[in-house]
Amino acid sequence: MEQADFLKEGEHIDDLQRDGLRIIQRRGGFSFGVDSVLIANFSEVRPGERVLDIGSGTGIIPILLSAKTEAACITGVEIQPEMADMAQRSVRMNGLEDRIEILQQDIKDYALSHRSKFHVAVSNPPYFKAGGALISENDSKMISRHELKLNVFELFEAASRVLLPKGRFYLIHRPDRLVDICCAARASKLEIKRAKMVYSVQGEAPKLIILECIKGAGSEIKWRKPLVIYEADGNYSQDIYAIYQNARITSFEA
Amino acid sequence: MEQADFLKEGEHIDDLQRDGLRIIQRRGGFSFGVDSVLIANFSEVRPGERVLDIGSGTGIIPILLSAKTEAACITGVEIQPEMADMAQRSVRMNGLEDRIEILQQDIKDYALSHRSKFHVAVSNPPYFKAGGALISENDSKMISRHELKLNVFELFEAASRVLLPKGRFYLIHRPDRLVDICCAARASKLEIKRAKMVYSVQGEAPKLIILECIKGAGSEIKWRKPLVIYEADGNYSQDIYAIYQNARITSFEA
Repeated sequence: MEQADFLKEGEHIDDLQRDGLRIIQRRGGFSFGVDSVLIANFSEVRPGERVLDIGSGTGIIPILLSAKTEAACITGVEIQPEMADMAQRSVRMNGLEDRIEILQQDIKDYALSHRSKFHVAVSNPPYFKAGGALISENDSKMISRHELKLNVFELFEAASRVLLPKGRFYLIHRPDRLVDICCAARASKLEIKRAKMVYSVQGEAPKLIILECIKGAGSEIKWRKPLVIYEADGNYSQDIYAIYQNARITSFEA
Repeated sequence: MEQADFLKEGEHIDDLQRDGLRIIQRRGGFSFGVDSVLIANFSEVRPGERVLDIGSGTGIIPILLSAKTEAACITGVEIQPEMADMAQRSVRMNGLEDRIEILQQDIKDYALSHRSKFHVAVSNPPYFKAGGALISENDSKMISRHELKLNVFELFEAASRVLLPKGRFYLIHRPDRLVDICCAARASKLEIKRAKMVYSVQGEAPKLIILECIKGAGSEIKWRKPLVIYEADGNYSQDIYAIYQNARITSFEA
């Protein structure tokens, strides 16, 4: 099949510059950003492990993890039908059907029937609280960014439920939400063991936080050295270049 | 009175290089460090407000706050009799008896009878959990550093109890303890509103965290730009020089 055969109107293909992997995205829709790349890079998956991506969106995290790890299988659960469909087509386009499965389902329902099934859970969840501005429940971007369908407490509860004892949960989020995150983690018995602060530019307030939680572990966080995304001159930092492996994202329009 | 009249054996006087302030410390005992200076600097006290310092130690925070702010009165509560006695003598030596009161008491008891009395609470508490190594309960350094007499949950509960509605609690702690801190804060209705990460050296894991909590506030943290203590050449950073106001600590031996 040709690249274009996988595309619907308004979609395009981005080349991930890694093992020939590509991903379908929608103009004006939710596109994966540096946060998905960071959390996939931070996640540690051992050969043969089963991985669940919660709120999989375009499927970027499962696709990146398929290249980076020797996971036995990676399941992505995505509530939005159009997003899940797009992710499924990206998986087929890359010929990864044997390792990646994308399910269109509410993770809260999925977790109820998949207790203690996974070694690793990963998520780049909605960052913002639902309240405040009037927002349409049908807007795909809104659902990806605001806690309309899944809040941080439900996220941790679902992750804890699907994980095996000592299973790891990798999460990227906004540091502004850290009290909610810590309380949700403790309540779900997913203790935060490793943390990395992400700064957009050196010397400014932190922008993102990356966490590793372990189911049933004791308390105390081991902080890693912070990550800085941009140099003062506006270019990506060496750390980011290393993570992206000097990737230049190139596009193919539908 | 002469300086020496305030001293007991084994003690010495340090000049704080600010408004002629001095402080008594004990060789081999717990000496105030950069963390006390940082939390006093971070704390915001409006003219006429009442301030409580929880676990006052040498009395360094009340003495620094007396110079920096127009607080009506600053109460320091310290459980260790020798430390409280030393702090009381430092207050008298500086002629600050009208603004600073040092009480030798367990803060848990004090808080029970002083509900909603203060606009501001401050603390540089013990950082380390009690468990683990065998430690003598009578060692003054151990009590200052380990949660033998006051753990982080008791600390937040006491701070919340003594504060007025919307009262502010300023705290410096280890980022490793952040899950405990966030859970204690939420449980005591002292929501973390402002946070500043402190790095010993740029690019390493964070060393300390400084927090402002507000009683009864809504969630979400506003992160400030991080503070770096040392330059790569081992000298203090410009930020630290500004905080210390180029202080050189000089000593007077008993």
